[in-house]
Amino acid sequence: MNATRSGVVEKLVTKAVMERNLIEEGDRILIAASGGKDSTVMAWALSRVRPAIRKNYELAAVHIASDFCACCKKAPLEKQLAEWGISFADISVPIIGRLKPGRAMNCYWCSTQRRMELLKHAVERGFNKIALGHHLDDIIETFFMNMTAKGELSAMPILLKYRKYPVSIIRPLAFVEERQIIACAEEKGLLNAACTCPFGVNSSRKIIRARIAGFTGNSGAIKRRILRSVDRAGLLAGE
Amino acid sequence: MNATRSGVVEKLVTKAVMERNLIEEGDRILIAASGGKDSTVMAWALSRVRPAIRKNYELAAVHIASDFCACCKKAPLEKQLAEWGISFADISVPIIGRLKPGRAMNCYWCSTQRRMELLKHAVERGFNKIALGHHLDDIIETFFMNMTAKGELSAMPILLKYRKYPVSIIRPLAFVEERQIIACAEEKGLLNAACTCPFGVNSSRKIIRARIAGFTGNSGAIKRRILRSVDRAGLLAGE
Repeated sequence: MNATRSGVVEKLVTKAVMERNLIEEGDRILIAASGGKDSTVMAWALSRVRPAIRKNYELAAVHIASDFCACCKKAPLEKQLAEWGISFADISVPIIGRLKPGRAMNCYWCSTQRRMELLKHAVERGFNKIALGHHLDDIIETFFMNMTAKGELSAMPILLKYRKYPVSIIRPLAFVEERQIIACAEEKGLLNAACTCPFGVNSSRKIIRARIAGFTGNSGAIKRRILRSVDRAGLLAGE
Repeated sequence: MNATRSGVVEKLVTKAVMERNLIEEGDRILIAASGGKDSTVMAWALSRVRPAIRKNYELAAVHIASDFCACCKKAPLEKQLAEWGISFADISVPIIGRLKPGRAMNCYWCSTQRRMELLKHAVERGFNKIALGHHLDDIIETFFMNMTAKGELSAMPILLKYRKYPVSIIRPLAFVEERQIIACAEEKGLLNAACTCPFGVNSSRKIIRARIAGFTGNSGAIKRRILRSVDRAGLLAGE
């Protein structure tokens, strides 16, 4: 099983969940499902690790659509999730509609609005965990971005307990490389139904991505050592 | 004054010395002088910052020659240091001679032997500080080396107090970029009399250097933000 590409992802998600105690008995976990490869592979993996972690937990997914998203293949996404025993909800958020007059659209505004809706939905429906699909490459990228742009060593926590809300954020894909997720999605024939952002990817993120690829030579071993060093410095621990 | 290239180095060394309290009243400081640009510029700068820091301190230099170093221009180095009020001593260490039979020469062995002799010389002569010529690029390089090779976030401290010995290590060039040192050495016409290591530069260091240059795009602003983030995480503080 573990020799397959999906088996590798399953093993790394099991490791993260068990080692960091991401899932506890009775958890009600809300998956932030964009319809893209990352969150879809995460949803699949979270449904697969049940036998290994031996806990009872509920999985549900929510898709947050914006007012500039018209291409979502929500029906097949809902069908796919249902096969894994995951319920699906769809929320529409008027991201552009909420912009104050004269303000331009930007990544920070959009992600803040989405995160707020996600938290609100979770709290209102009684979910105590929110699972985000950030993977190893995303975490390293954030680490390097914060270092070079903010002058600060920080990253994304694997488990973050909010003080203000009765929910925690978990990142079960933290140990999985992006290429392993892509390989898994291809092997399992998983849907990739994420909207393409019409505003384009943040250009500073594109630059940092290329620079990190150059720096690591795309070596998985180097990327894992970077993640380990970030982890050992306590930067993957929330609070 | 500060508009000149040497003025920039003087200002950055003054900043490091004052901000980190590297020099205290009555200090007896031993400069590890290779004869190369870094330690020579450091010796010059440490003699120049006297008026700014308003403390009495003694400066002396020691050159540690190995049994594979035959090219040293020690006489002109001694003369140059004397002009700045810095005494000079020369020590010979049989680095190769101390190798156990069958062992090959390597950077780790050589640097450990040199560091030991430096400490011994300082303790025996009553110096309480040892000044090393590592600059901003060296510190960043060590940070990235430790991260990618050891899986650990760590760097070189600006001030390190030894527990076992009555001496501290200081790195007054910590805020100075290598290119600023080169520009200063050129402007002042400083001697560059370091031996070239016949064993060649450590190849993993060469690789990491090129990768860091690619990652930072050789931007001074980015390198300073990396140093700041390393500093804010407490990694430049020794003990």
